[in-house]
Amino acid sequence: MNAEIITIGDEILIGQIVDTNSAWIGALFSQNGITVSRVVSVSDRVEEIIEAIDSAIKRADVVVVTGGLGPTKDDITKSAIARYFGVDLVRDYATFEHVRSMMEARGIEFNESNQAQALVPSGCEVLKNENGSAPGMLLRRNGRLLFSLPGVPFEMKALVCEKVLPLVRREFSLQSVVHRTVVTFGMAESILSETIAPWEEALPEWLRLAYLPNARGIRLRLSAYDVDKEVANAEMELQFRALREIIEPYYIGDEPVSVEAALATLLCERGETLAVAESCTGGLISSRITQLEGASKYFLGSVTAYDNDVKEGVLGVCSAYLRCYGAVSQQVAEQMAQGVRMLMNADYAIATTGVAGPGGGSEDKPVGTVWIAIAWRGGVESRLMRFGLLRDQNIERSATHALNMLRLHIIGASSWLQNSSVL
Amino acid sequence: MNAEIITIGDEILIGQIVDTNSAWIGALFSQNGITVSRVVSVSDRVEEIIEAIDSAIKRADVVVVTGGLGPTKDDITKSAIARYFGVDLVRDYATFEHVRSMMEARGIEFNESNQAQALVPSGCEVLKNENGSAPGMLLRRNGRLLFSLPGVPFEMKALVCEKVLPLVRREFSLQSVVHRTVVTFGMAESILSETIAPWEEALPEWLRLAYLPNARGIRLRLSAYDVDKEVANAEMELQFRALREIIEPYYIGDEPVSVEAALATLLCERGETLAVAESCTGGLISSRITQLEGASKYFLGSVTAYDNDVKEGVLGVCSAYLRCYGAVSQQVAEQMAQGVRMLMNADYAIATTGVAGPGGGSEDKPVGTVWIAIAWRGGVESRLMRFGLLRDQNIERSATHALNMLRLHIIGASSWLQNSSVL
Repeated sequence: MNAEIITIGDEILIGQIVDTNSAWIGALFSQNGITVSRVVSVSDRVEEIIEAIDSAIKRADVVVVTGGLGPTKDDITKSAIARYFGVDLVRDYATFEHVRSMMEARGIEFNESNQAQALVPSGCEVLKNENGSAPGMLLRRNGRLLFSLPGVPFEMKALVCEKVLPLVRREFSLQSVVHRTVVTFGMAESILSETIAPWEEALPEWLRLAYLPNARGIRLRLSAYDVDKEVANAEMELQFRALREIIEPYYIGDEPVSVEAALATLLCERGETLAVAESCTGGLISSRITQLEGASKYFLGSVTAYDNDVKEGVLGVCSAYLRCYGAVSQQVAEQMAQGVRMLMNADYAIATTGVAGPGGGSEDKPVGTVWIAIAWRGGVESRLMRFGLLRDQNIERSATHALNMLRLHIIGASSWLQNSSVL
Repeated sequence: MNAEIITIGDEILIGQIVDTNSAWIGALFSQNGITVSRVVSVSDRVEEIIEAIDSAIKRADVVVVTGGLGPTKDDITKSAIARYFGVDLVRDYATFEHVRSMMEARGIEFNESNQAQALVPSGCEVLKNENGSAPGMLLRRNGRLLFSLPGVPFEMKALVCEKVLPLVRREFSLQSVVHRTVVTFGMAESILSETIAPWEEALPEWLRLAYLPNARGIRLRLSAYDVDKEVANAEMELQFRALREIIEPYYIGDEPVSVEAALATLLCERGETLAVAESCTGGLISSRITQLEGASKYFLGSVTAYDNDVKEGVLGVCSAYLRCYGAVSQQVAEQMAQGVRMLMNADYAIATTGVAGPGGGSEDKPVGTVWIAIAWRGGVESRLMRFGLLRDQNIERSATHALNMLRLHIIGASSWLQNSSVL
């Protein structure tokens, strides 16, 4: 059985927001054996919404529409659905009371625009939205299901988990599907592809391999459709174990692992602690580490030393080094790492200093020049990276490479750095 | 004239990556008077790619396809296009040489998978990709243009700017379109909507208003189609000035301004400096500030004090306060702000300490409890926030509210905080 997703809103088409709802629904559906065969984004115009719903419901067993249900005047999904099904909008009393009590609790006046939230196409099944005022709705045509959900992500997510998925499960028998993905970091795509070609050739025919590169690594996904789940999982486990032997230590682990999560696991296992000193990465390394739950077990803290006085005063970098070698230098990177490690009495430290751009570059230190250092009780090591011209990418890549450099040091694979291509 | 975008890849449909390419193309096209009327994402299957191209090219003047051009075996867009146009794949010699010299420069072997990059549908116009090995392609049918571009964002972006847009401009007369968006922060959507209703009612009919809420505020967009650009711009300027008077100080500024960018502008104008102390936000405030170009003009640095020893040893928080009131308390938040301000000798400081979750909550300090403090030469002020249960959202909201609290203090509007709803 298959599903299509329709996301509604001019803001998507003119690129003012990125549609993350469909990716989230796609991931959840796919884990549950529902194939999402198409995602379509259309504008806030009634005719286009109707056309998109009409084509989707002819192709797919389940159609999920998100967006266009807010209290403001530009939201017209409900009118489009009512027109497509040839019914009127009528007040749903349960929703009316729900919205009224919500507004009361928050001390917000129950005004006309809030009352409009309780209007729904006559005959639809209302799916109560516990987290907001716009209700979900289910309509049926020829045995197919059309869900209309609010576009606010956390409201939509709760409705999908609590209402949509159970309803779909009850009415359809779902396909068995298994996806498993591993994360690699530090190898260019073409090299990775060549290195693992013999392994790829030898995969069973019912396993599909996909490459998914991004700034934080290249992920490899195996997928199996309509195969016994246990068989598929066992085969994937074997295959990924074989892959790991081929590309270790570029193999970071199973998704959703990231380089920082792999490092976190290592530090937890060893009961060791980490401190970070950031210049060009500006807090991103610290922020990525603390996005992980339980980071306080191993992460002590960080200093973003943007100003040279902070490098000197807080981290103890020599003023002579700053003068002679400049803030973007091996000497300063190493002193930052050692300084923050001692300041916070951590087992390890990571430091970055570089020219993120677009300004600040010079002939010998162009934009993209970054020094990364790691320090441990008894030593320090550093590495020069040369990235490109884009500020965001330079910050992001510096952070990932810095985290990875410590990871490789801890697993005793620092020497691999010499051979790795800069991604 | 209108365009459609097709993004290709199972990874999009199963939600493994979020399609950001179409948003980027949508924004650029829309600024240039090209209406993107639809975005469709389909899987890596030849039949589905062909079907999507066929429907799109019947509806739209320009179709842009991204993805599926990599060197690895799962990429099949080129075969689909060749089949749809009834031609063979042939080697393009310029691309072959380009890829060979790229690989040589990077010290990567020019292997079979790289050589396959030079295969293109016979008769297509090759658009040289300066930033990568997969070329762009242009094909024509009945006066309509089909562009096929690599999915790697920075390669795609360069090709769109340098090749696609100039080609489209040459062949079509583009519609005049003006969008302008302002950012608001601190007012719930229904209150905002009611507050500005009289203003909205009085807008000229040819101006369309849209609400765009997200975790960083609610944006309001005015759009005008097929209206003289100068007239539209002048009218929008007037309207937004009137809006500003109604909702000041919730009015942050013109997009792409963010709360941090508005704060940055204030600090630059005043020649004043900022330091940050973060506990629950873990470096995010610092990272958001330093993502802005030129942050070094006003941003000195930050301390992420995750561990209590760092709060005490680096920021000078009293150990008695930590013991008696706990790390998540007004006293500790205020000492963190004062401590980092003095440590870095900054004019202002921001501090956060809270329970981001999912662990660490207690009865009197449940998950979502956050203290925010700001300090200046001569004073300190703090505020208790109660957010929800989601770690990511708690971190994000704490960061935005903390930045906004300092912004309001500097513009002399702190008293507005008492009336604002927590979003």
